[in-house]
Amino acid sequence: MSIMTDEDFMRRAIDLSLLGVESGGGPFGAVIVRAGSVVAEGSNRVVPTADPTAHAEIVAIRQACAQLDTHTLEGATIYTSCEPCPMCLGAIWWARIGRIVYGNSREDASSIGFDDAAIYEEVAAPIERRRLPMRQMLADETKKAFDAWLLKADRIPY
Amino acid sequence: MSIMTDEDFMRRAIDLSLLGVESGGGPFGAVIVRAGSVVAEGSNRVVPTADPTAHAEIVAIRQACAQLDTHTLEGATIYTSCEPCPMCLGAIWWARIGRIVYGNSREDASSIGFDDAAIYEEVAAPIERRRLPMRQMLADETKKAFDAWLLKADRIPY
Repeated sequence: MSIMTDEDFMRRAIDLSLLGVESGGGPFGAVIVRAGSVVAEGSNRVVPTADPTAHAEIVAIRQACAQLDTHTLEGATIYTSCEPCPMCLGAIWWARIGRIVYGNSREDASSIGFDDAAIYEEVAAPIERRRLPMRQMLADETKKAFDAWLLKADRIPY
Repeated sequence: MSIMTDEDFMRRAIDLSLLGVESGGGPFGAVIVRAGSVVAEGSNRVVPTADPTAHAEIVAIRQACAQLDTHTLEGATIYTSCEPCPMCLGAIWWARIGRIVYGNSREDASSIGFDDAAIYEEVAAPIERRRLPMRQMLADETKKAFDAWLLKADRIPY
């Protein structure tokens, strides 16, 4: 068996991005690789599955974790046909994926009508300058669950 | 029936954050409200479901969209026991939720061991200064799916 390269895995992500369009989703695909083998794949499924979180990267992460029965993917690389949006970059971080290889940029995505660059601006903005209004309240009461978490001897951090 | 206030819905999110801890997940809860009624609820389920994307907000968004069979929640408010992390803020944006009410801050979450503040720094950093290594490649080939998307007459933007 020949050893697969970054180019090979990225070309598979490109195939999945075309499949996304063909199957009624957005033009995005992703592949998760660990120890040289594909662990999971995803195409964008937002519209077909009525799930705004069904970006290719998240579809692939959820599938990889379900298959491996784990909430972390240490040592994995994600190949994605487009730079991950902040939602997907956050998911990649929480999944402990170690490296990202991508093709199109956030600006490319924005140029065909997707909100990626706008969401990057929103996430980086101070809360009082956000476009999406935010109100903080009852911070004293919301601490209760944090206290309960710290007191729980068998808690599993993630 | 009495009219529910921001405080009422936030107290329900607090109940769900305590339920998150009790059921083996993290100390986070969220409620989605539209036209004065609860549409969906979520507790953190990362560890119990082996899904790193199962934050309370995303659990609630996916449930709301599944129930209403739509990928957008225009006019909805999300009540969350903690400021959404970048993954969840992105999901809230993509779902077109119009307002966020929250309790604990990202700094509060970081103080008990969660990565929220670190992920905010990562998302705001230029790509070349990220902690998570990123490589761009084959940008000419990844454009193919974007072209296919633009040429698709019946595409559904989201």
